[in-house]
Amino acid sequence: MARSWPPQAEFDEGVHPAVRFFKGDIRDEAVLQDAVEGCDYIFHLAGKSGASTSNESPIEDLDVNCRGLLLLLDAMRLGATEAVIVFPSSRLVYAPKLPVPVPETAPTTPLSIYGAHKLVAENYLRIFGLQHGLKSVVMRITNPYGPYQRPEQRSYGVINQFIHEAMRGRSITVFGRGEQLRDYIHVDDVVEALLAVAMSPAAAGATYNLGSGTGTSLADLAALIVDVAGSGRVEHVPWPQSEASVETGDFCADIARIEAAVGWAPRVKLRDGIQDVITRVHRAPQRG
Amino acid sequence: MARSWPPQAEFDEGVHPAVRFFKGDIRDEAVLQDAVEGCDYIFHLAGKSGASTSNESPIEDLDVNCRGLLLLLDAMRLGATEAVIVFPSSRLVYAPKLPVPVPETAPTTPLSIYGAHKLVAENYLRIFGLQHGLKSVVMRITNPYGPYQRPEQRSYGVINQFIHEAMRGRSITVFGRGEQLRDYIHVDDVVEALLAVAMSPAAAGATYNLGSGTGTSLADLAALIVDVAGSGRVEHVPWPQSEASVETGDFCADIARIEAAVGWAPRVKLRDGIQDVITRVHRAPQRG
Repeated sequence: MARSWPPQAEFDEGVHPAVRFFKGDIRDEAVLQDAVEGCDYIFHLAGKSGASTSNESPIEDLDVNCRGLLLLLDAMRLGATEAVIVFPSSRLVYAPKLPVPVPETAPTTPLSIYGAHKLVAENYLRIFGLQHGLKSVVMRITNPYGPYQRPEQRSYGVINQFIHEAMRGRSITVFGRGEQLRDYIHVDDVVEALLAVAMSPAAAGATYNLGSGTGTSLADLAALIVDVAGSGRVEHVPWPQSEASVETGDFCADIARIEAAVGWAPRVKLRDGIQDVITRVHRAPQRG
Repeated sequence: MARSWPPQAEFDEGVHPAVRFFKGDIRDEAVLQDAVEGCDYIFHLAGKSGASTSNESPIEDLDVNCRGLLLLLDAMRLGATEAVIVFPSSRLVYAPKLPVPVPETAPTTPLSIYGAHKLVAENYLRIFGLQHGLKSVVMRITNPYGPYQRPEQRSYGVINQFIHEAMRGRSITVFGRGEQLRDYIHVDDVVEALLAVAMSPAAAGATYNLGSGTGTSLADLAALIVDVAGSGRVEHVPWPQSEASVETGDFCADIARIEAAVGWAPRVKLRDGIQDVITRVHRAPQRG
């Protein structure tokens, strides 16, 4: 399940003979029922992203991310009781300003509606497991990035936005001194981890951090992007209030648990991942 | 704010000259806007109760308890920014089978949708506090009881149901051996605590357990009710699945935090509280 419609050109119906598309809203029970039938693994990527957006529109975030998930779980309970659902939670469930690296046992006191709804979603999965035997794995993803994100949407990833600006020779805007650490993980590593936990019986019911395990400051990230892109420059500006209120301090995930449980480890280095986005998206011939 | 309509006979418009009634659904923004205007203190008692019910109808619980609260907080943000909201959370936010007495710092991993939604509600209050300066106090109430509960609704309190049955000379049904401890608190003590925290500036932003601090087994409770009522008898039956799945093990609240912060302490002893319910409700002349 994904959240974009129409699918981007690279992902049309011809992408693979085994891929079927169901067009519909995650809140449409009939579509859900059709989509889950016969599934062994369900990757619930049809959520709504963004901490700032969620604080501006909490009711919409509730409807898509909480009611949508409850409807999906109900569809699974009725038509896919043996399936494993892999849920993309977020580092934003954690309390702000924890000592890094942060393990899965750290306190969960989210600063955003988005984080609060990820946390209640984790609870839904646990409760449906207890009551209906539903199998799930929770992945608390750090800051994912990669090709095919929409560069204009900051909420979908700061790396993509920075690359977008650098490639156009523009300024990359960094709030404050940009010292806060983030844990950036390439989408290829994310996909490998999601597949690994789905297929590992040992992972059912578990909660894992999914990150690179390495902290990078925003200023260092911006400088690296300018360096790899060979264009753009870094500009520091004061924090806007809407961003400052959801700023969570340094973050870097402790990924020992998933490494030990399923043998997954991140493989894409940050410089290579940035190069990959630039090559695959920004220097690729335009299609469609 | 309360959840019953029409109000019971004892609470009609004539109860006190300062009381105004707003008839409406908690999900109706216009009613909320009217109701919160000019308020100094808001006691949000217009929720939907019951762990078993919430598991059977999670979407309805979400709509009333999460969307309803978000709408109320939005109404406060627009029209009652200085008000203090006192929120009745629940002991059901805690992980099951914790060592008793349970302090506020204990892990929160609810077994029911109801508990999960109380937890996200606590997060809403914290987040609206950070972002909009809204003042709130979270009260994790144990097992409240008292007159004016509806005896036929188990979800509104086992004490009332037991008294109802004992007064009619019927069997009080106890699941299993009835050894699990619960912390029963009389509604008069609850009301005093809600008022105390609302008016204590030191309480803003705090989370408190609100209970008697004493654990009583279900079997002992049933025997006590038969003794005070002078009728009825105790019958032990096997656990129904729907109840077993939300059974949380022994519970008794550590109430040191609220005692220290606002000087509140419970005053109604369990035997006296049971006597009070019997006298005020079951032996009172019928009205209306």
